[in-house]
Amino acid sequence: MAKVLIIGAGGVGNVVAHKCAMVPEVFEEITLASRTVSKCEAIAAEVKKRTGRDIATHQVDADNVPELVALINNVKPDLVINVALPYQDLPIMDACLETKVHYLDTANYEPKDEAKFEYSWQWAYQDKFKEAGITAILGCGFDPGVTGVYTSYAAKHHFDEIHYLDIVDCNAGDHGKAFATNFNPEINIREITQKGKYWEDGKWVEIDAMSIHKPIDYPNIGERESYLLYHEELESLVKNYPTIKRARFWMTFGQEYIKHLTVLQNVGMTSIEPIKFQGQDIVPLEFLKALLPEPSSLGENYVGETSIGCQIKGIKDGKEKTYYVWNNCKHQHAWDEVGGQGVAYTTGVPAMLGAKMFLEGKWDNGAGVFNVEQFNPDPFMEEIGKYGLPWEETENVEFPHEY
Amino acid sequence: MAKVLIIGAGGVGNVVAHKCAMVPEVFEEITLASRTVSKCEAIAAEVKKRTGRDIATHQVDADNVPELVALINNVKPDLVINVALPYQDLPIMDACLETKVHYLDTANYEPKDEAKFEYSWQWAYQDKFKEAGITAILGCGFDPGVTGVYTSYAAKHHFDEIHYLDIVDCNAGDHGKAFATNFNPEINIREITQKGKYWEDGKWVEIDAMSIHKPIDYPNIGERESYLLYHEELESLVKNYPTIKRARFWMTFGQEYIKHLTVLQNVGMTSIEPIKFQGQDIVPLEFLKALLPEPSSLGENYVGETSIGCQIKGIKDGKEKTYYVWNNCKHQHAWDEVGGQGVAYTTGVPAMLGAKMFLEGKWDNGAGVFNVEQFNPDPFMEEIGKYGLPWEETENVEFPHEY
Repeated sequence: MAKVLIIGAGGVGNVVAHKCAMVPEVFEEITLASRTVSKCEAIAAEVKKRTGRDIATHQVDADNVPELVALINNVKPDLVINVALPYQDLPIMDACLETKVHYLDTANYEPKDEAKFEYSWQWAYQDKFKEAGITAILGCGFDPGVTGVYTSYAAKHHFDEIHYLDIVDCNAGDHGKAFATNFNPEINIREITQKGKYWEDGKWVEIDAMSIHKPIDYPNIGERESYLLYHEELESLVKNYPTIKRARFWMTFGQEYIKHLTVLQNVGMTSIEPIKFQGQDIVPLEFLKALLPEPSSLGENYVGETSIGCQIKGIKDGKEKTYYVWNNCKHQHAWDEVGGQGVAYTTGVPAMLGAKMFLEGKWDNGAGVFNVEQFNPDPFMEEIGKYGLPWEETENVEFPHEY
Repeated sequence: MAKVLIIGAGGVGNVVAHKCAMVPEVFEEITLASRTVSKCEAIAAEVKKRTGRDIATHQVDADNVPELVALINNVKPDLVINVALPYQDLPIMDACLETKVHYLDTANYEPKDEAKFEYSWQWAYQDKFKEAGITAILGCGFDPGVTGVYTSYAAKHHFDEIHYLDIVDCNAGDHGKAFATNFNPEINIREITQKGKYWEDGKWVEIDAMSIHKPIDYPNIGERESYLLYHEELESLVKNYPTIKRARFWMTFGQEYIKHLTVLQNVGMTSIEPIKFQGQDIVPLEFLKALLPEPSSLGENYVGETSIGCQIKGIKDGKEKTYYVWNNCKHQHAWDEVGGQGVAYTTGVPAMLGAKMFLEGKWDNGAGVFNVEQFNPDPFMEEIGKYGLPWEETENVEFPHEY
């Protein structure tokens, strides 16, 4: 029986709060904190309605370490689940260090003034977390998160050596809006407009944004044009599985989405360089974010499903083999169960389950900073279906998007 | 010999200042004023370089009547040429009334908080201008402006009754930018995103923005997709030529321009409703304007030409006839002559010539508020070619975009 403090009351925070509340045998006390306490209260009211459970709410500025420390000392959680903005990973880790409380997040730290996705900043906390005797679990959403668990599960049970890894992420949903992002638009657009990057033969290969794309055939969905992006789990996976010769990440985008993004880039609306306007520094991308629909508002009319998985080639018992493991998730299922949408749901459920694994001692690597693939994948794979994200697998299929 | 005060130092102000300076026999003293005096100074330096003439510069807030009055009293011009923003027409007219100085502009007043293009506000100054013994010349750019002169010239020399009027405006230029507007983006986008409207059988017919379009064949250019828009000269022309059964305005837009505009509308960037952002009210369209290229910066690499004209059907001596009168203007010509681009040039040259007509007594209707078609078109038509905008005409051609 444990206490958790969830920081962040967006679409993912909503899912994590609901899912924790649905597992009272582990999550005995739940506190939800965010800059805007009214968002926490709205989620708490929904959780109460759906589960009958009370969760506490707090206001906190997650950029402010002393405020975070005060909150943690007040709540005294066993674990902080950080589903705030990636900019806030480091202040929250600092507050965990100061209060000696365990930490879990779903996305790597990014500096606000630079679109740079890498683990370096958080991995640099390794020694401090060890000394403090606490654990940090990094990137425990779906991708990163479940994709790492899938890979470690494959490595453990299906391969002697993994050689090729393609993470394939399809959102075949339709929210009915001309343009909206499925998670924080600022983070989403930063991620997509940066250069693409993949791992090959021991080094990173950089490509122009969206310049490599192919149709990929997704289970129950069919072929969808998929774009090679850089995605953060590639960094930890090639480090933890050094036999990997090539690791890539693919994501689907519709033509309308790309059209909108291209135009917004052309006119400078996706820039993170502030401009002077009405005497203030204004970051165009932040202004754009203020205009776009809240990702958490997309759920009600969201139809269709997501499909995310790992397509792996390697060697088992001296022979080449392929393996594909994936989850499909219907947006409407997320709406019905927790009032959310599929992209938030697929991120929030693994965060809850990672927290559960840790609090139950099923994920125990001692003190330090870890990516999810470093933990035992078996108990996680055993339970994730029960909590809403069942997986399927096939062996020795062709991956026709090979090139 | 006369003194003029030009208010507004954008692309059109640059053209008007140059063209006035090139006609020293009429424009003896020229003053250029704007909110940003450095823009006036930059234009003055260019004028000096090209013509050897000195023009005076002043800072003025054209929204502020007392400031305008002080400036006019200081400069003592014979005529104020207003090429500032349409929002500023009324304060400048108020200042002219108070100082009893004649007035000329190139675009009708618009309230800032409403995209509403109509002459009502300015026509309401009729009695006041009469009483003050001064003249206001409204809409003396190209369209409105030359299109009104073309129509009155056609009415005087080619028709007993005009029945059908199509103003056809093509910009077949290429400035090499993904997206830029040829005049103030805020005004341009307000104009295009409003509902379309045309005059038929004694009433206005409203249509969804950009919903009616056809290819129109432009001289020396060829067929270009042209969109039915509302444009302000339609209002005065159907009033001054009551035999007109149908009056429409068509403008070309490229597919890329429309794509950009559609996306910017979809995400709310073209809205004139302020949103709260960083504690301020910010109008999305004004923020967008700050990101887009300055229209006056487009000239150097602008290739191609504009073609604007009037296609008219009516009765002469009891017989049906058609008449087409137009000007084609190369962007590069504007760059070479005044360091501008074609859209600013075609607006600024007629403003100078209207001022010249008035100051020479060739346009003399006495005191009051007038649209350009109410003046004698002949001297204007005689001189406009010499000043850079020669016209051509054909009779009894087919207008295949009839429907």
